[in-house]
Amino acid sequence: MQLALERHGSHPLYMQVVTQIQERIRSGALPIGTRLPPIRQLANELGLTRLTVHSAYSELQAGGWIESFVGRGSYVSQRPLPQRAPVASLLAPPLLREEPGDFGELLRLAAAPDMISFAQAAPAYETFPIKQFNRAMQQVLAEADPALYGYGATQGDARLREQLALLLLDRGIQAPPENILVVSGAQQGIDIVLRALVPPGETVLVEEPTYLGMVERMQAYGPNLVGIPMDDEGIRLDALEAALIAHQPRLLYTIPAYHNPTGICMSPARQAAVLELAQRYRVPILEDDIYGLLSYDNPPPSCLKAIDRGGIVVYLSSFSKVLLPGLRLGLLTATPPVLQALVAAKRLTDLHAPPLTQRALAEYLERGHFSVHVHSIRSVYRERRDVMVRQLQRSFPRECTWRVPGGGFCVWVTLPPSIRVADVYAQAVERGVVFAPGPLFSADPHAPNGLRLCFAARTPAQIVRGITILGEVLYEQLARRPRPQPATLCHSVPLV
Amino acid sequence: MQLALERHGSHPLYMQVVTQIQERIRSGALPIGTRLPPIRQLANELGLTRLTVHSAYSELQAGGWIESFVGRGSYVSQRPLPQRAPVASLLAPPLLREEPGDFGELLRLAAAPDMISFAQAAPAYETFPIKQFNRAMQQVLAEADPALYGYGATQGDARLREQLALLLLDRGIQAPPENILVVSGAQQGIDIVLRALVPPGETVLVEEPTYLGMVERMQAYGPNLVGIPMDDEGIRLDALEAALIAHQPRLLYTIPAYHNPTGICMSPARQAAVLELAQRYRVPILEDDIYGLLSYDNPPPSCLKAIDRGGIVVYLSSFSKVLLPGLRLGLLTATPPVLQALVAAKRLTDLHAPPLTQRALAEYLERGHFSVHVHSIRSVYRERRDVMVRQLQRSFPRECTWRVPGGGFCVWVTLPPSIRVADVYAQAVERGVVFAPGPLFSADPHAPNGLRLCFAARTPAQIVRGITILGEVLYEQLARRPRPQPATLCHSVPLV
Repeated sequence: MQLALERHGSHPLYMQVVTQIQERIRSGALPIGTRLPPIRQLANELGLTRLTVHSAYSELQAGGWIESFVGRGSYVSQRPLPQRAPVASLLAPPLLREEPGDFGELLRLAAAPDMISFAQAAPAYETFPIKQFNRAMQQVLAEADPALYGYGATQGDARLREQLALLLLDRGIQAPPENILVVSGAQQGIDIVLRALVPPGETVLVEEPTYLGMVERMQAYGPNLVGIPMDDEGIRLDALEAALIAHQPRLLYTIPAYHNPTGICMSPARQAAVLELAQRYRVPILEDDIYGLLSYDNPPPSCLKAIDRGGIVVYLSSFSKVLLPGLRLGLLTATPPVLQALVAAKRLTDLHAPPLTQRALAEYLERGHFSVHVHSIRSVYRERRDVMVRQLQRSFPRECTWRVPGGGFCVWVTLPPSIRVADVYAQAVERGVVFAPGPLFSADPHAPNGLRLCFAARTPAQIVRGITILGEVLYEQLARRPRPQPATLCHSVPLV
Repeated sequence: MQLALERHGSHPLYMQVVTQIQERIRSGALPIGTRLPPIRQLANELGLTRLTVHSAYSELQAGGWIESFVGRGSYVSQRPLPQRAPVASLLAPPLLREEPGDFGELLRLAAAPDMISFAQAAPAYETFPIKQFNRAMQQVLAEADPALYGYGATQGDARLREQLALLLLDRGIQAPPENILVVSGAQQGIDIVLRALVPPGETVLVEEPTYLGMVERMQAYGPNLVGIPMDDEGIRLDALEAALIAHQPRLLYTIPAYHNPTGICMSPARQAAVLELAQRYRVPILEDDIYGLLSYDNPPPSCLKAIDRGGIVVYLSSFSKVLLPGLRLGLLTATPPVLQALVAAKRLTDLHAPPLTQRALAEYLERGHFSVHVHSIRSVYRERRDVMVRQLQRSFPRECTWRVPGGGFCVWVTLPPSIRVADVYAQAVERGVVFAPGPLFSADPHAPNGLRLCFAARTPAQIVRGITILGEVLYEQLARRPRPQPATLCHSVPLV
């Protein structure tokens, strides 16, 4: 069965399938009793996921258009009940959905075999200290403390918070364990801070571009994001102050150390000035320091929280980039009245993080492995960064520009206006290379004509091969003659 | 230092401390250079937590009222800067805070040594199958699969979802693994469903009373909750239909099996009628089945989801009551278009649950331990339920009423109007017994003059002792002469 699907349209794909099958049933093109193709077959024919086709068939079944029988397939019903609204109409707007190019689709593509993925800012499996972590977990299991299998404190395991307080000292932050909240990764940390500090409909200032999880959340539930442009020293002060005045934001979200996706580090002078502006306009700062320790050329850059005399900075970090993302553990620290609000928001979100994994991480940290580990992964990632940058210089057209990141996981490449990132993405996926397109990182879907290339999880050989392929795609896109604009009626009559 | 604190007032306790110390500094009662009492000491004197006093001192320090020196204490500053707004003023309303009687305080009280707590609906440590679970976890650790330490699929571990699909069959639910989302416990499941299906400001119908985590969430962020009264067969149909018409809700949240806190089971006839009403008014149902397997007298009651032909029910369960709360693992299942929205909401919340704990649970379930475990914990909890009910009959005044719950973890006791639950709570805590007061379970803070007594985590001896003490408190409250109302000016002049 062939259907005309609009892959970048405003209707979800499964609803397009639903509508077109309904039309064929109405028109008689699919008579009563016709057997529909099996889900797997139709998915293959249309190039859709099975979940999408399954969703469409479920909608049709809920509406009485088709009947499904286990082992026998789906058939056009005798009496369609077109007056019943589809199940999806029960969903609140915005219905969260997955479209081509979305992060969800990216993650699925990135997991496909033979795909070279620069999409996800994930650490390399080869760096995982599995043996050491397992030994820590074994120790915790051997203690068989029932409290670690039961409900725990929302704020997090006390032994872990002590270790976190020690780690924070390395970042220049003096935060006692009682000022620390354990969160289930940085994405949850952001979510909790927004819940506690930003009422719906209010504005948050972010760097332009910014972390895609923040953009996704904004598109789904608000808040309004206002992007502030960056220069080589970080967020621009003139634009920041103008936005503080114009938008009266409730929060400034910033990634000062190895900014995702651009790799820029905020200079110490800029940090002091940003802090001063935030204090003057009484706007709290959420500092995302998830890449802070991943510096390859110099010592780790300084933190806003380290110079935060007024208690205006909420500091966020996680173990997903520097240790094991599967732990889903991170931390927030803030001044006590703010921390109380964050703890309450964590409780409403999921009560608390699992005590077993928290205690195993505490045990791992107590054993003193972490600083050695960070030292060793720095050299792995430094090499991969160098390989990627060298290959970019060899393979990419001069019209593309990038900065060499001093740390973190990604290179941000800006494309010339003559190349559309969506075209590059489509071509690259076809040839087995995937990356995160620029619009995912911006509140304005058309703004950043760039792409983020994460080198951390790929071997040097994969990096060379993937960047070579991407370079070919870019040269082809550059070589394409600009498509002639179709003549429109509007221009075929005199403009009077 | 004695301060006059209003424990049930509208101002957070730490701000009351701040304001009163500020007043004393202004008035000269606390001259410049005075040393304030140490945090621990003031907390003890005032009966506050250290976090509260710490918050207050931090506020005072941020405002320039006091100066703190490590190891030397806090002193009244030379130059207070009263023009600076306190840090807490940066928080969005509603500022999430913890007040006496709140769930957060309850949890702290419940954890105090020598306290007999009937407050938390937690399973008994003695039932935890720690050895069996550890063996499953050991097996997973031995495989050392790096994928389990890395980023995983938002929807959850595939092997776990297969096991969950099998467990759902025992509840009469046919849900393939691809229709299941793994969540980090039932609280997160509720949060995700509200995020995906209920826009801010919209209404959710709940049973009156209902799960306290739902009430807490409503008080913090919305949605509007409308409580529907219950009878012996569950939510009342007349009131439900009236509310469906009057409020045009976006969701009906119900706990049909061993309702928390009342213990009521929705009858099969009532379930069919509720489903029919929800379909007629096109309102999706969130069915919380967290206690479904915990039946002590009869086979587990039926599920709404098992008879949900129209795909209108989102089903929620978790392993917190029947296995190990520390795993923080539960599940949602829904028809595919709804499930897609739930998966997207989970990703925005915390990306995914930790793969290690998910796989360990899968391994545990694959080994076939679970049904034996559930069988054995039923007899433990049946005995505790029986001990509690017997002791209630012996120790509680006739004026108090309760139902014998056929399953679940709690007995819900309704107090006569002459006894205020707040008085009982205060007296009971003083004598070392704590419970969850009725208002925590209601959108209307004054509605349920009752108390929830959870028997599951207490030994029979503790139950006997705790209920005996509570009975004494109740008899004393009953015996108190009604306090003479103070004569007011209003009544001392003729009501013309």
